[in-house]
Amino acid sequence: MKALILLSHGSRRQESNDEMLQLAQAVAGIQGSPFARVVCAFQQFGRPDFKETLGQLVDQGVKEVIVFPLFLAAGSHVREDVPALMDEARAAYPGLQISVMPHLGQTSGMADFLLDQAVRHQS
Amino acid sequence: MKALILLSHGSRRQESNDEMLQLAQAVAGIQGSPFARVVCAFQQFGRPDFKETLGQLVDQGVKEVIVFPLFLAAGSHVREDVPALMDEARAAYPGLQISVMPHLGQTSGMADFLLDQAVRHQS
Repeated sequence: MKALILLSHGSRRQESNDEMLQLAQAVAGIQGSPFARVVCAFQQFGRPDFKETLGQLVDQGVKEVIVFPLFLAAGSHVREDVPALMDEARAAYPGLQISVMPHLGQTSGMADFLLDQAVRHQS
Repeated sequence: MKALILLSHGSRRQESNDEMLQLAQAVAGIQGSPFARVVCAFQQFGRPDFKETLGQLVDQGVKEVIVFPLFLAAGSHVREDVPALMDEARAAYPGLQISVMPHLGQTSGMADFLLDQAVRHQS
């Protein structure tokens, strides 16, 4: 059983975190997805945090997790905090397969996606 | 002549701003784009800022600008700063057509895009 975790920085403003939770729900609702669970976890502000999210997924029988860091650029969160979170997670759940994607700004389809959205907007 | 401005918060860390500038270059390099110019402008940290970007585009003959706020959630930057920037821009360049897209986290294709990138990663 596979899960996708959208890892967000999180905000002190709950409405912003709610937007991320709704985005995760929208992804979870897409038909034909290979992920049995799609959830959002917050790195700095907001709940649930990454650790509690991981615990819940493991309790639900998830054996493999893909982590998608929702950051546009590789600041200290991407370069330092994400690897540290992953080290902790692998130590806490040695049986769980954890894979980390490039951060959002570096995913391969990002440039095409941005142009496509802009074209749709202006047409 | 149309231009697309990717509006980024900007970072105190220049490498992060460079990532955004490179992303804009990647978008600019896509064949078949309707945008004669695709540039990145920074809202809080980093150069060029929005105002100087707009001035350059107008000097280059751009008549229509689409602004894409690269924010995942609608914090104060999206809700207050972006509208204020647009008001200033419309006052400074009354002949320029300026249209603002929903911020990145709210664009219509975002959920599908995130899932698609995750599927590509895990396969």
